[in-house]
Amino acid sequence: MVNWKRYKFSLFAFTLEIVFIILFGVLAEYDEPAKPTNKNLTSPVPNRYPMFQDVHVMIFVGFGFLMTFLKRYGYSAVGVNLLIAAFAIQWAFLVRGVIHEVTHGEKIHITLLEMLSADFASATVLISFGAVLGKTSALQLLVMALIEVVLAQINEYIGLDKIGGVDVGESMYIHAFGAYFGLAVARVLYTEDIEDSKGEGTVYHSDLFSMIGTIFLWLFWPSFNGGAADDDEQYRAVINTYLSLCACTVVTFALSAVVDKKGRVEMVHIQNATLAGGVAVGTSANMPLHPWGALLAGSVAGVISVLGYKFLTPMMAKKLRIHDTCGVHNLHGMPGVLAGIVGAVAAAMASEATWGQSYYEIFGKVIPMDNTTELADVMSSYSFIEKGGDGRSALQQGGFQMLALLVTLCIAILGGILTGFLLKLPIFNAPKKGHLFDDQDFWVVQQDGFPQIEVDDMNETHNETKMVLIEH
Amino acid sequence: MVNWKRYKFSLFAFTLEIVFIILFGVLAEYDEPAKPTNKNLTSPVPNRYPMFQDVHVMIFVGFGFLMTFLKRYGYSAVGVNLLIAAFAIQWAFLVRGVIHEVTHGEKIHITLLEMLSADFASATVLISFGAVLGKTSALQLLVMALIEVVLAQINEYIGLDKIGGVDVGESMYIHAFGAYFGLAVARVLYTEDIEDSKGEGTVYHSDLFSMIGTIFLWLFWPSFNGGAADDDEQYRAVINTYLSLCACTVVTFALSAVVDKKGRVEMVHIQNATLAGGVAVGTSANMPLHPWGALLAGSVAGVISVLGYKFLTPMMAKKLRIHDTCGVHNLHGMPGVLAGIVGAVAAAMASEATWGQSYYEIFGKVIPMDNTTELADVMSSYSFIEKGGDGRSALQQGGFQMLALLVTLCIAILGGILTGFLLKLPIFNAPKKGHLFDDQDFWVVQQDGFPQIEVDDMNETHNETKMVLIEH
Amino acid sequence: MVNWKRYKFSLFAFTLEIVFIILFGVLAEYDEPAKPTNKNLTSPVPNRYPMFQDVHVMIFVGFGFLMTFLKRYGYSAVGVNLLIAAFAIQWAFLVRGVIHEVTHGEKIHITLLEMLSADFASATVLISFGAVLGKTSALQLLVMALIEVVLAQINEYIGLDKIGGVDVGESMYIHAFGAYFGLAVARVLYTEDIEDSKGEGTVYHSDLFSMIGTIFLWLFWPSFNGGAADDDEQYRAVINTYLSLCACTVVTFALSAVVDKKGRVEMVHIQNATLAGGVAVGTSANMPLHPWGALLAGSVAGVISVLGYKFLTPMMAKKLRIHDTCGVHNLHGMPGVLAGIVGAVAAAMASEATWGQSYYEIFGKVIPMDNTTELADVMSSYSFIEKGGDGRSALQQGGFQMLALLVTLCIAILGGILTGFLLKLPIFNAPKKGHLFDDQDFWVVQQDGFPQIEVDDMNETHNETKMVLIEH
Repeated sequence: MVNWKRYKFSLFAFTLEIVFIILFGVLAEYDEPAKPTNKNLTSPVPNRYPMFQDVHVMIFVGFGFLMTFLKRYGYSAVGVNLLIAAFAIQWAFLVRGVIHEVTHGEKIHITLLEMLSADFASATVLISFGAVLGKTSALQLLVMALIEVVLAQINEYIGLDKIGGVDVGESMYIHAFGAYFGLAVARVLYTEDIEDSKGEGTVYHSDLFSMIGTIFLWLFWPSFNGGAADDDEQYRAVINTYLSLCACTVVTFALSAVVDKKGRVEMVHIQNATLAGGVAVGTSANMPLHPWGALLAGSVAGVISVLGYKFLTPMMAKKLRIHDTCGVHNLHGMPGVLAGIVGAVAAAMASEATWGQSYYEIFGKVIPMDNTTELADVMSSYSFIEKGGDGRSALQQGGFQMLALLVTLCIAILGGILTGFLLKLPIFNAPKKGHLFDDQDFWVVQQDGFPQIEVDDMNETHNETKMVLIEH
Repeated sequence: MVNWKRYKFSLFAFTLEIVFIILFGVLAEYDEPAKPTNKNLTSPVPNRYPMFQDVHVMIFVGFGFLMTFLKRYGYSAVGVNLLIAAFAIQWAFLVRGVIHEVTHGEKIHITLLEMLSADFASATVLISFGAVLGKTSALQLLVMALIEVVLAQINEYIGLDKIGGVDVGESMYIHAFGAYFGLAVARVLYTEDIEDSKGEGTVYHSDLFSMIGTIFLWLFWPSFNGGAADDDEQYRAVINTYLSLCACTVVTFALSAVVDKKGRVEMVHIQNATLAGGVAVGTSANMPLHPWGALLAGSVAGVISVLGYKFLTPMMAKKLRIHDTCGVHNLHGMPGVLAGIVGAVAAAMASEATWGQSYYEIFGKVIPMDNTTELADVMSSYSFIEKGGDGRSALQQGGFQMLALLVTLCIAILGGILTGFLLKLPIFNAPKKGHLFDDQDFWVVQQDGFPQIEVDDMNETHNETKMVLIEH
Repeated sequence: MVNWKRYKFSLFAFTLEIVFIILFGVLAEYDEPAKPTNKNLTSPVPNRYPMFQDVHVMIFVGFGFLMTFLKRYGYSAVGVNLLIAAFAIQWAFLVRGVIHEVTHGEKIHITLLEMLSADFASATVLISFGAVLGKTSALQLLVMALIEVVLAQINEYIGLDKIGGVDVGESMYIHAFGAYFGLAVARVLYTEDIEDSKGEGTVYHSDLFSMIGTIFLWLFWPSFNGGAADDDEQYRAVINTYLSLCACTVVTFALSAVVDKKGRVEMVHIQNATLAGGVAVGTSANMPLHPWGALLAGSVAGVISVLGYKFLTPMMAKKLRIHDTCGVHNLHGMPGVLAGIVGAVAAAMASEATWGQSYYEIFGKVIPMDNTTELADVMSSYSFIEKGGDGRSALQQGGFQMLALLVTLCIAILGGILTGFLLKLPIFNAPKKGHLFDDQDFWVVQQDGFPQIEVDDMNETHNETKMVLIEH
């Protein structure tokens, strides 16, 4: 008799890939400048591809290696990260295309900007992956990706298109969403087994592998926040993010040494909290925050993030039974909320007097509804605003920014809870008791050099072998 | 008395470097826009350099780290990879320059595009290196590079310039060539010692180092396939490769879990087969395959590659005595052949009706010989086609694509066999019996942390330390 | 009572970060094209950002991982590297801005080019860090960064603006300065404890981590030397550096095998000396050295660097009590001096006859003082030379290049000595005896997998554990 359990993951993945190919066949076509017959259109590749590749590196090297800190879960960190992202990217093209193009009777266009958006969409899932790292099967993760991409894209559509909450670096729609969705899933999937597990932990060199991820994320975050922007908005996004990260890094080191009894710094803070500055300015990166504003936002993010790792994460695990493996709440959750608030405050304080034309470019909804002649004249240089906006005041825009943040948190948490209950169904190959944080659940693991854990702490073990180094 | 054996490698390398400097002095000069007196020419750097750097990363980080999976051969993987590539790049400028410029009475121009081609040329050798990894000395590898670059460039000249077989991502002229050349060398160098060797194998963290290579190759493959193209061709190359890799990754995971008895995935598949999708669309990446076509090609490549690793590689080692250390047959060989076939089929099915002007741009030989006025008019926007082509039909072009593939396989295999016999000569410092897959053959190795193998399996050993795994 | 020693590092870092934010608030503003009201200015991001990111990778991945070769100092290598660079970057904006803008009554403009310069400035400190690696506290390093950035920027101002010593890749102003400054600091901080320390050394995989740094530095060095240049100068910088590195790599391998008794190569040479070719052409990278000239310069650099590692570094430690942990003298010091000499020779041999307009563009001081009409006509295409130069002859320019090098060495060495004495003050938390090359001095270290050293060789130890890890 066929052992279906064994084939479930593969069947699911094969089936979805076939469905993807069919849907791409029916719905998708190349971007116009990529069509062989459109010789007069300009390819976006020379201008936009380098930043796309920076983001691409963040998704696969950054997130992948950042999660290799677990001593017995490195294959999964970088390998399953690759799987989920490759899966989510394809799905995101379809989901986004249906929302933004198919519903308007158009084909889905595979553009370079949509490749960036698809990479972004996969980041949402990878952030959630960080919260449940080591506690879910590959099959559960694919199912999670399938649902989360849909919910996150609907949320982005509501927040961005309907509410008009701008978020150039997607700190709300990706970082906060991914974090709170993942934490909700983690809450539902919580078992006592997690706290008992001896498999969660690092070894000296797994912390170094993780730093590969950290550094590449740190380096390319300006491309993440600026990748979808243009001209002066993009330039500001790059500068603000760069400065924010520098300040965040200094503060992270300083505070990490304060909260340790002996004045030493903790690897987990350096690996993660140094990046919070990138999240913190994500919503407002294209706004004129001023250089000092970017430094300040990064500094605050570093403080929040380190304190979160030190005090909040253990407390949440103990009291709320939310076990957050990578501490995504501290890197993506709270800094994402901070970003939303910074964006709302900046929006509320903005005006045409100080921001000039950028005021209308950044916040489309503040354009007067009647679109007076004088204003229309100003707008004429900005091609994609052709019709009037909602005539919001700056303060109103600030309020709508907060609304977008709140909607994001609601959809993320509710969606995460429902997804968690779905993933709990016994059909999705959840890791068995005693197999948490263990590559052996999904991988043929090279035992040589694989850190062993003590047998009596495991209810069940794959390995009889212990590792004894005898020197002759 | 001088121990010449000890100095052979250095003498060879020094001599060649001096020869290179002299030949560059006699034959080479800067690209025109790089000359100090040509102020009116446009530098290609802003447009083309980012993709060049992506490919550069693939060559040195990608190939280098991909091969670090062997537990006792990491220095050689990343270090000798650096040596071979730095050597082959210089040689490739000269070889390519002689073929394409010196024979036309011109100087060799060091251009950014030739830097890309030189990097490409080194990839050919690095792929072959993968087949013989751990079984050859540095001296043998330099000799191999010296020969292989010449043969590969002659083959490319025949295939591309004479036969007119297009191959934008060089899946035939680099990947298939490098793989089958390397396999032929590996066949000739085969000894029983290889199968007995206990040094071949991974440790847990060497597999993680290898993933650094995998991920960077995976990320930048769109730049490999699109780096030499322009405009819409480049844009399609990027999109097709990106999509193909995503599909290939999902299929690789799914199939790897199917072929394992317990439904787990294998690291070697993830490290390599996930990349086969990049090779598979290499020949046709600039063609309008449609998004679904790219996904399909990538999926098929994943299937072929995983099955190759699982069944073909062990069989080839046992039955044909072709020991393929990295499995280049599965990553570069078969997917390279697949790419050639996909390219031939796409060519045979192409027409001006569906591809428009691109039909003539991509396949220069289908341009009518008489170059009628109407067509010449179409051509006028495409500057580098000025004269008539061969007037081939699409079907004929498909046939010539297959011919180019066949010629490539022939030259690669014959060249590899002859090179193998040359390398077998006792003068090239082949690794001694019992020293295969062992950095100690060429490196001063840090013993601390160097994985030891059991003494009684080695005829001779450098180390007293043993690693004893005690099973309880 | 508060243990101030424990908080000193944090207090220093927090205070400086607050000072930075205030100074940025008072003095700094966005680059003009980044201001929201300047819609008509062109953003430099599409053109210049990719090379900036390459350099960014070099600073944080390159330098950071290169220094992870020490078996017990990997966290510090990559982590403290991140801290110092993030700190020095902010400080460099301010120091450079005061020198170049505030003194002229302008605000400090945060431009993309200044981001590149700030990254460059941090490199100076990171090079010095290499000389004192493992022998200084984080607090000492921040203090060193604070002083060194000021001195290095003043030196660059004198050398570049006053003396007119050009140095496109900053081999004098960054590499030589950083190296000799660091060596001077190392000399003053020398203690017997260093030679006794058992903590200095590598393990097999720490050498592989280090190669991550090496390869990324090697790959992106053309961007380092060409990042601040434009047009044909940039193009030549890229080509020269690329070629120089290839030749340097082959020579490094060849010579490394010669100087070893058994004809093997040494990891430390490969990790470092292969990069000397990038330094060696740094000053002259934008000059028409010819391809063979670049190859030759790289080859000579490889020779100097390997010989330095083999013979000079141990001798300097023993005889001069200059302990150079990373061998920065061989990678940055001597090759930096070589670069200065190559630049001086190239300058002395230059002429308008052979270099054309580039002669005046590269060496602003050779422009005639009276700026004759004919010449002014030539200059008109070169926007930033508007007034006459100093009317130097080529030979004089060569002399001034040498002067700039000498001034650099003097300021670096004197500055380093003074800084060393300052750092020796007991207030800066210098590592205690027996805690050199040990992450445990600053980090909460994961003991699992942390290489232990024998207890009886340490006067004091954190760990009871010895190399024999027996798990029960």
